[in-house]
Amino acid sequence: MRSFENRTSTPVEEVKKLTLITAIKTPYLEDGRFDLPAFDRLTNLQIQNGVEGVIVGGTTGEGQLMNWTDHIMLIGHACVCFGDKIKVIGNVGSNATWEAVYATEQGFAVGMAAALHINPYYGKTSSAGVLAHFNSVLDMGPTVIYNVPGRTGQDISPAIIEKIAGHCNFAGVKECMGNQRVESYTKQGITIWSGNDDECHDARWDYGAQGVISVVSNLVPGLMHQLLLEGRDPKLNAKLQPLIKWLFMEPNPIGLNTALSQLGLIQPVFRLPYVPLGIEQRQQFVQIVEDIGRQHFVGDKDVQVLEDDDFLLLHRY
Amino acid sequence: MRSFENRTSTPVEEVKKLTLITAIKTPYLEDGRFDLPAFDRLTNLQIQNGVEGVIVGGTTGEGQLMNWTDHIMLIGHACVCFGDKIKVIGNVGSNATWEAVYATEQGFAVGMAAALHINPYYGKTSSAGVLAHFNSVLDMGPTVIYNVPGRTGQDISPAIIEKIAGHCNFAGVKECMGNQRVESYTKQGITIWSGNDDECHDARWDYGAQGVISVVSNLVPGLMHQLLLEGRDPKLNAKLQPLIKWLFMEPNPIGLNTALSQLGLIQPVFRLPYVPLGIEQRQQFVQIVEDIGRQHFVGDKDVQVLEDDDFLLLHRY
Amino acid sequence: MRSFENRTSTPVEEVKKLTLITAIKTPYLEDGRFDLPAFDRLTNLQIQNGVEGVIVGGTTGEGQLMNWTDHIMLIGHACVCFGDKIKVIGNVGSNATWEAVYATEQGFAVGMAAALHINPYYGKTSSAGVLAHFNSVLDMGPTVIYNVPGRTGQDISPAIIEKIAGHCNFAGVKECMGNQRVESYTKQGITIWSGNDDECHDARWDYGAQGVISVVSNLVPGLMHQLLLEGRDPKLNAKLQPLIKWLFMEPNPIGLNTALSQLGLIQPVFRLPYVPLGIEQRQQFVQIVEDIGRQHFVGDKDVQVLEDDDFLLLHRY
Amino acid sequence: MRSFENRTSTPVEEVKKLTLITAIKTPYLEDGRFDLPAFDRLTNLQIQNGVEGVIVGGTTGEGQLMNWTDHIMLIGHACVCFGDKIKVIGNVGSNATWEAVYATEQGFAVGMAAALHINPYYGKTSSAGVLAHFNSVLDMGPTVIYNVPGRTGQDISPAIIEKIAGHCNFAGVKECMGNQRVESYTKQGITIWSGNDDECHDARWDYGAQGVISVVSNLVPGLMHQLLLEGRDPKLNAKLQPLIKWLFMEPNPIGLNTALSQLGLIQPVFRLPYVPLGIEQRQQFVQIVEDIGRQHFVGDKDVQVLEDDDFLLLHRY
Repeated sequence: MRSFENRTSTPVEEVKKLTLITAIKTPYLEDGRFDLPAFDRLTNLQIQNGVEGVIVGGTTGEGQLMNWTDHIMLIGHACVCFGDKIKVIGNVGSNATWEAVYATEQGFAVGMAAALHINPYYGKTSSAGVLAHFNSVLDMGPTVIYNVPGRTGQDISPAIIEKIAGHCNFAGVKECMGNQRVESYTKQGITIWSGNDDECHDARWDYGAQGVISVVSNLVPGLMHQLLLEGRDPKLNAKLQPLIKWLFMEPNPIGLNTALSQLGLIQPVFRLPYVPLGIEQRQQFVQIVEDIGRQHFVGDKDVQVLEDDDFLLLHRY
Repeated sequence: MRSFENRTSTPVEEVKKLTLITAIKTPYLEDGRFDLPAFDRLTNLQIQNGVEGVIVGGTTGEGQLMNWTDHIMLIGHACVCFGDKIKVIGNVGSNATWEAVYATEQGFAVGMAAALHINPYYGKTSSAGVLAHFNSVLDMGPTVIYNVPGRTGQDISPAIIEKIAGHCNFAGVKECMGNQRVESYTKQGITIWSGNDDECHDARWDYGAQGVISVVSNLVPGLMHQLLLEGRDPKLNAKLQPLIKWLFMEPNPIGLNTALSQLGLIQPVFRLPYVPLGIEQRQQFVQIVEDIGRQHFVGDKDVQVLEDDDFLLLHRY
Repeated sequence: MRSFENRTSTPVEEVKKLTLITAIKTPYLEDGRFDLPAFDRLTNLQIQNGVEGVIVGGTTGEGQLMNWTDHIMLIGHACVCFGDKIKVIGNVGSNATWEAVYATEQGFAVGMAAALHINPYYGKTSSAGVLAHFNSVLDMGPTVIYNVPGRTGQDISPAIIEKIAGHCNFAGVKECMGNQRVESYTKQGITIWSGNDDECHDARWDYGAQGVISVVSNLVPGLMHQLLLEGRDPKLNAKLQPLIKWLFMEPNPIGLNTALSQLGLIQPVFRLPYVPLGIEQRQQFVQIVEDIGRQHFVGDKDVQVLEDDDFLLLHRY
Repeated sequence: MRSFENRTSTPVEEVKKLTLITAIKTPYLEDGRFDLPAFDRLTNLQIQNGVEGVIVGGTTGEGQLMNWTDHIMLIGHACVCFGDKIKVIGNVGSNATWEAVYATEQGFAVGMAAALHINPYYGKTSSAGVLAHFNSVLDMGPTVIYNVPGRTGQDISPAIIEKIAGHCNFAGVKECMGNQRVESYTKQGITIWSGNDDECHDARWDYGAQGVISVVSNLVPGLMHQLLLEGRDPKLNAKLQPLIKWLFMEPNPIGLNTALSQLGLIQPVFRLPYVPLGIEQRQQFVQIVEDIGRQHFVGDKDVQVLEDDDFLLLHRY
């Protein structure tokens, strides 16, 4: 049963209005625990640059590498510290329905504005099973559905989305299947956030998307604000493509973790199975930062290449 | 490493100033999960009646029956909903040092104002071990030490308290060893909260205690405010003694759980090993409520005796 | 550090010799807990029909729906009850390296003969990351690598396998990428189990595979013994294809769960997100059983269609 | 529901016949994880010296410092490695009924011969609550009840024991309340193990106790075999008293951990809140070993005093 206190009951309409949402990075201490002061710095930079929401513990934030106590703690931490300045959306999805149900209850209890839910990846299930999975969590509060077949091995078909789109808590879809799919939804009045940074400008301005759930906004939140909220800007969009391409050359968040380390915003600590990009890619990043302009990136330290030995890789956290 | 955001860094001086703190009850749904709407109601009643702080997940709140994910969630929930109106003190103590360390980090991360810590009960240890235990958590934030030999089987000696009393995060002691012990501490300038409702009036007005961490204030927060914050009142103190005696005739929170059920504020659901007081005791409670006056108790339903069958006892939560 | 007791240190050579391994079903009670007597029955039927190994808590056994305490308990249970009669291989893979490391230590401690490991699904990582992931667990004991891109969204390339194939604990690969891939490995002397029931006969007899890690052997262990261990048998292989096709018409273990319920070997209890196959599919199964012969299937009750209402779907376990 | 496989269903009569049971030490690696090879050595020494049973994860084995996954793993490990040579009794007690229920199911599933259960320490409850607590676990298998008011703050009264003594799974009581209490039980035919090493000889030979659940037998299993199983021996009993007195000068297992470190059988690693005995006490232990004779103690290294710096104290495990 959900609490009815104000701080734990954001109306779904407020969630639907968000345009620029960042899937925020989780930084680590040398022993693998969360680096909360660094997390606070990253989040404040998002707020200062006009970002409207954050996904906490998404795949970008490496929720898949957290135990649930830590995961819920991080959502609660974000809510208690920043909940009045930015919408906190908790990734409480799981391929186990009981786990998704449990985490969703917990996340709403500690104040998250909305839940992000994924279809059952890896284990997979039938369409009826996917539907039953989502229906097990939809009653609890505002819900964003995440479709990313490249990770889950299974597309959430429009047929499934259309079946749940009428639920009072359905906020919309983070969609990675491209802008044709985006358009087919937005024409039906379904709220869509692009899950692909490279396509989000067009999704927003040409295909009716509400906005983006972005990775690159971790690095250049101000530019992403300009791109998504200050009018059509194909020039800026083109200017950002090399950065986005670099960022996704290996599975996310490998590029992001490497970039934030190079920018001096986080300690260069990786929880395995993530490892930093190689030295050549790190050199490319320095060039990309210079091309776009250091002042557009978060932080104020010089961007560095870093040596292989500067990175710490952890296999027990 | 602790977050420095305002919402997660209460100065120890603010904790030391609290006089009336309630060890708040955790209510349950029929399936054993937390009943958050009922928890919110109980907490709002505390706030409305002038209570200044709550202990979340203490022995009264049955922290000993929670897994840590739920326990931290409840602390976070209290902080996000009520942290601006009442000081939330999290019981993050454990007889395992690693568990106390972990829970304390988590509790501060989700916004608790202070930590409540216990010496290692059941497992017990040497004086040097108790000291090492407390020193493992004191650096993290404001800390209240809880001494209750009747539960732990081991007194925290003044020698131990005096060794940690100088730490910048040491807030004070919840002391159950009687008012002579209280006085010996307060003369040294150590902040003390009485842990015994029956002695707290005298502790406060005659022995220098700062206040009380109370169980009975769950039921009569307004009267406890009068008793502790509105001047010496031996008449009121005497009037409350039958209620207090009733409340502790069996190990707390058996009496409290029974009373709140009879007052209609919580569902009559008990997690084992707690069971309700018997029918005769429940009848006595109705009489006690009438003697003191229903209007002084929380809630507005008629007090009921309840039948044995009205109670639900759960052994799998 | 691994125990050196006999019962917890199976030589990798013994693992490499196994031909018929069943990815065994985990049956549930009505409240969602494991049904251990039913698990014991299923396992004994495997042993009696000549199956040489079981995967405990694989995707078929719904390890993805277990917490780790339960998961390790089930591996330990299988080892202590059946470890002297059948090789117990624990699925201790995870997309989080720390979790895979932890579960692998635990699994070997409770006696598993070998570990089954998966590449980091859903979160995904770079080739260097996949390699680091496997290298974090290989030192602990005999290891089978599982490649199933349809679930993980990422192929484990031959380049990666070849890099770890020389490790003294590398037992082989459960490969789902087809018999060309199987052959390319077996020609290099790498031990391969087919992960596809429909291809396993040919994998074994034509492409050099050591055997199969099978789902269908849960149902017809004796026939699978004949197919894999009693010589080339294309006729039997053809006879089994309709059953296999039926079994995988929806993501595994949906078909298997439905079939074992219909055969009366397990209670018809599903943990979501799995739901039973529909009534038409269940009718087809009755026909398939009759075509192959009830006596070849496990159990001795009549095969039933079951009504929709006979199934119990659980969303909190 | 309990498994009926032989390896997981020891008859209660076999448990009642055990005389010498050791509450075995859990040794740690430098990073705080279990040192399984050292655990195996300690257990084999017990077996070789005629000990008939071990309590795994008792207060001596620091079950109070384990998470349940590790705790059940250790029970499972002991069962799979040594279950055919020694009776493995799992300490699956907790002050939370749900936790005791869960751990008991798990422990029996991985093969423990019997469960050790404690009354709800710290949280405490009424007599009716204690009874309900024990009745929640008794149906699962052979059960030993542990009464140690010095740790729990609450005596399990004879009235409670007599109410459960007739249950088919009731094996007996580990009683620490002295030999008068022992005798009052044994006269009623209740099986009793002394929980006090200093009194166990008399308990056995004068008061009808079945035997002892011993700490000192970790160090001198052969002498304890002589004391308990080879006839009345007041001389040996007297000879052991200084060792026993030394062992319990601080709360157990502080002395035991120190002693096994000095004997070179475990790494000198302590999980807080346990810390080693001081240098003078360690010097006394060397003298005690010499007085009794090094050959009667486990291991074959010279007993050492060890420096303070030789010990590693861990606060995060």
